[in-house]
Amino acid sequence: MQATLTKTAAAERISFGTDPDRYVHWRMSVDGAVATLAMNVNEDKGLKPGYKLKLNSYDLGVDIELYDALNRIRFEHPQVRCVVLTSARERMFCSGANIYMLGQSSHGWKVNFCKFTNETRNGMEDSSRHDGLKFLAAVNGTCAGGGYEVALACDEILMIDDRSSTVSLPEVPLLGVLPGTGGLTRITDKRKVRRDLADFFCTTSEGVRADRAKDWGLVDHSAKPQAFAQAVQEHAARLASASERPADARGVALTPLKCGYDEHGYHYEFVDAAVDRAARTATLTVSGPAEAQPDSIEGILKAGVAWWPLQMARELDDAILMLRTNETEVGTWQLKTRGDIDAVLAVDAVLARHRAHWFVRATLGMLRRTLARLDVTSRTLFAIIDQGSCFAGTLAELALSADRGYMLQLPDAPEKAPHMALSELNFGTYPMVNRLTRLATRYCGREEPVEEARQVIGEKLDAHDAARLGIVTFTPDDLDWDEEVRIALEERSSLSPDALTGMEANLRFTGAETMETRIFARLSAWQNWIFNRPNAVGEQGALKVFGSGTKAKFNWERI
Amino acid sequence: MQATLTKTAAAERISFGTDPDRYVHWRMSVDGAVATLAMNVNEDKGLKPGYKLKLNSYDLGVDIELYDALNRIRFEHPQVRCVVLTSARERMFCSGANIYMLGQSSHGWKVNFCKFTNETRNGMEDSSRHDGLKFLAAVNGTCAGGGYEVALACDEILMIDDRSSTVSLPEVPLLGVLPGTGGLTRITDKRKVRRDLADFFCTTSEGVRADRAKDWGLVDHSAKPQAFAQAVQEHAARLASASERPADARGVALTPLKCGYDEHGYHYEFVDAAVDRAARTATLTVSGPAEAQPDSIEGILKAGVAWWPLQMARELDDAILMLRTNETEVGTWQLKTRGDIDAVLAVDAVLARHRAHWFVRATLGMLRRTLARLDVTSRTLFAIIDQGSCFAGTLAELALSADRGYMLQLPDAPEKAPHMALSELNFGTYPMVNRLTRLATRYCGREEPVEEARQVIGEKLDAHDAARLGIVTFTPDDLDWDEEVRIALEERSSLSPDALTGMEANLRFTGAETMETRIFARLSAWQNWIFNRPNAVGEQGALKVFGSGTKAKFNWERI
Repeated sequence: MQATLTKTAAAERISFGTDPDRYVHWRMSVDGAVATLAMNVNEDKGLKPGYKLKLNSYDLGVDIELYDALNRIRFEHPQVRCVVLTSARERMFCSGANIYMLGQSSHGWKVNFCKFTNETRNGMEDSSRHDGLKFLAAVNGTCAGGGYEVALACDEILMIDDRSSTVSLPEVPLLGVLPGTGGLTRITDKRKVRRDLADFFCTTSEGVRADRAKDWGLVDHSAKPQAFAQAVQEHAARLASASERPADARGVALTPLKCGYDEHGYHYEFVDAAVDRAARTATLTVSGPAEAQPDSIEGILKAGVAWWPLQMARELDDAILMLRTNETEVGTWQLKTRGDIDAVLAVDAVLARHRAHWFVRATLGMLRRTLARLDVTSRTLFAIIDQGSCFAGTLAELALSADRGYMLQLPDAPEKAPHMALSELNFGTYPMVNRLTRLATRYCGREEPVEEARQVIGEKLDAHDAARLGIVTFTPDDLDWDEEVRIALEERSSLSPDALTGMEANLRFTGAETMETRIFARLSAWQNWIFNRPNAVGEQGALKVFGSGTKAKFNWERI
Repeated sequence: MQATLTKTAAAERISFGTDPDRYVHWRMSVDGAVATLAMNVNEDKGLKPGYKLKLNSYDLGVDIELYDALNRIRFEHPQVRCVVLTSARERMFCSGANIYMLGQSSHGWKVNFCKFTNETRNGMEDSSRHDGLKFLAAVNGTCAGGGYEVALACDEILMIDDRSSTVSLPEVPLLGVLPGTGGLTRITDKRKVRRDLADFFCTTSEGVRADRAKDWGLVDHSAKPQAFAQAVQEHAARLASASERPADARGVALTPLKCGYDEHGYHYEFVDAAVDRAARTATLTVSGPAEAQPDSIEGILKAGVAWWPLQMARELDDAILMLRTNETEVGTWQLKTRGDIDAVLAVDAVLARHRAHWFVRATLGMLRRTLARLDVTSRTLFAIIDQGSCFAGTLAELALSADRGYMLQLPDAPEKAPHMALSELNFGTYPMVNRLTRLATRYCGREEPVEEARQVIGEKLDAHDAARLGIVTFTPDDLDWDEEVRIALEERSSLSPDALTGMEANLRFTGAETMETRIFARLSAWQNWIFNRPNAVGEQGALKVFGSGTKAKFNWERI
């Protein structure tokens, strides 16, 4: 056990930072309002040894570059209104997640890989919905499995009609697993493909060609090879024309994050993730702005990548990914904040006032997606609202995303006690993937408590107020605080990590469901189950024997 | 493998038929508009050897009696408007599913047991919603795990306030599994308990007493021991008063089903389940009415339990349960019908005309719940619409519940070709658990095709018509029919049963989600995963070592 920890913490640590100059799997080009991301996977540059990324298949490393490219388009190329996702290869769009990588990966790695992939794809739809950045999949060749799933995440799919290229989801027939990064959900929920046609499609390894794909609603458009390039341009131009992204803005460069990784954790300027591997806990502390923040667009653009809400969001996003990927046994995260409530509320007011500006909107998007990433993180989240904290407005979302909140009472020194505050941004700016605010989700659809909370926007709320509103769970006083928090953390850390993952996935999203929650919580749960079954991963399981020439051997029991 | 099959097919076959005279775990009593079901589990009468059902804990056998009792109340006691669910024990309501039974059960058994339990509980809510049969949980003592989950399925919960009894969901802390028969979903979705309080509640093995339970919304009412019986009466009377069940109707006795079980399958009068264990397929054939059916209430009541829609529904329900429980390797079911379309449509017209009558309404409920059981059955369902079939109206729901439909074309003899037909009952009478019709679900929320289908109510639809409407998938002609159906069945039977289960669970319920779909497809999927993980079921897993004095040993990796 110790060996694993040490190993992960050092040489094999995965990092999510990259930039276009370092891409080995994608070519990004920008031409006016259209950016093109062409997949061109370098088969020798897998993230881990032991497999070759043939046929434009992907692993986490390919997805990390895609995620980086999307963020650069959002921030560095504000004039881009449509992204064309295509392949730099002839006759091969993408053959999906690399099977040999999956076959040799641990259960946890597979699940974490799928989650990041899902988040990146949902992020494309998030940008389309909120920021008017549209996506066109230009499927210029064979498009299988995860390759089709990434196309499904685009607004529209244009497919080449060359009488041989197909789209397919061959996971069930070839691998004994599911099209689990959105495929099963998007074909019905997004593309409205009839369930019986979807059933046939998902059990047919060879897939379907352009004519049938269009008939069944699996793609939107098709074009003959000689007309394909022209069709891509036309559809991209049409999608771009409906976008609200600015035509003449100057982008903000996403300079590399400054992060110190050491044995104690991950240290950024506004975010610190201190790891206690023995206790299996991490303390994720987010600091408010250190100095006065700009309140004009000019000042905000001048601050650029160093503007507190953006830098903080990028750091938090990276810290979540680092902890999730590299600290898999650290099961409980304490969420803390440090700083001045008024300073945070002032930033919220600026965010609200200038939300129509592309850069502010892009920053809100980064915050929204980062908070959404926290929601689907399979770690216990306890908000620890202690002295010096600033859970206000945007940062109050951290407390609202937590499984529980502990807030300190100081009956003898109320002036020193921590306070929370809500801002208007808590009432619609950061919807969870269920499209509800964290407050609405918390109250299970009851409207009165949301209205009560709205009445106290801007007020400083002590532990008593916060408990009355129901935005914290427990409010020990200073006599009980240390012991109560310690015991809660210790108890939590003693429980079955699997049971906690399942419980949290159920309790965090109550009532309302959307395509995204169906992907994360329904499709992913089934895939987790299948990824753990001998029929997939046993010595004779389908995923294990793929490509060996041996046929999988199944236990035929239907569960 | 063969040994298992033979064994299951003979001595160990589980049967779902029982009657109050044979109950060993429940006491049923009826007093005017109130029926009382008092749990009094006989610890020596477990369904299988190897465990004792101590502390009013339950296994499948206990649930089979509960299911039978509910059906008897629905049909034999129409004057009952409220069912009080309580315990015949002092200070012990129910301690939940028996842990030793779970610990020694196979993965498949656990999952199937949970599914039946869920269906029975959803059935209580179904009767409350559709038929005005109300449920009061009279929690007269400790109420843990599955015990609290059955209480959650009632309309209201009255809890004894004796300063010691608690309600609890200790699955996560004690067993490393989930409150997976609805618990996690119902506390938030039905009872609107705040997610952070739910988090605490679900990780606290000792549970909470009446005062806190009421504060947090975990129960509706509490009463001191000396006032408890009176409170039960009052709350039951109040619930009964809101019901629309008839005051003076005479019930219809549910006489035992006549079923022949032999090596070839399960044979009833209107339903036949022929099993081909070598091919791992079953053919489930439903026959239409054999003779003229009554069209007046008097005639219907005279037919009573032998009325075709009721007898057919009961037989189909039993056949589904028998196949699910006893033929676990038979993964593909062909759904067939035999009979006269006009006769089926005539019955539908009678069902529609008299739907306000309690007995017709109860029969529609039995049909609705049986069809819903088919939807969540983890077997591939192919509708085979061949010569002599009568997929019309109510029976067309079978085709609409299938993963695919194959319908025969006879271009040279159109008069002999099979036809389908829709009736008004296909447009709202048999909602799936997502509250949508199977037609609406099929079209993924698009309204036009539903309207098109409504235009052809009562018309005889040949394969061409049915394909155009999208209610069948493939329409081979007689030259291709045998081969195409054979290949489809063979291909299906060759696929990973786990992948199919996951795929079907995703494709059958598109878009809209409800508490019930969240229970079946989200909560159950997570539970399936956990039930398969070493942290629960490994040699040192929590479920395995429970009660042994040994502490579970976990792999701490968070997935």
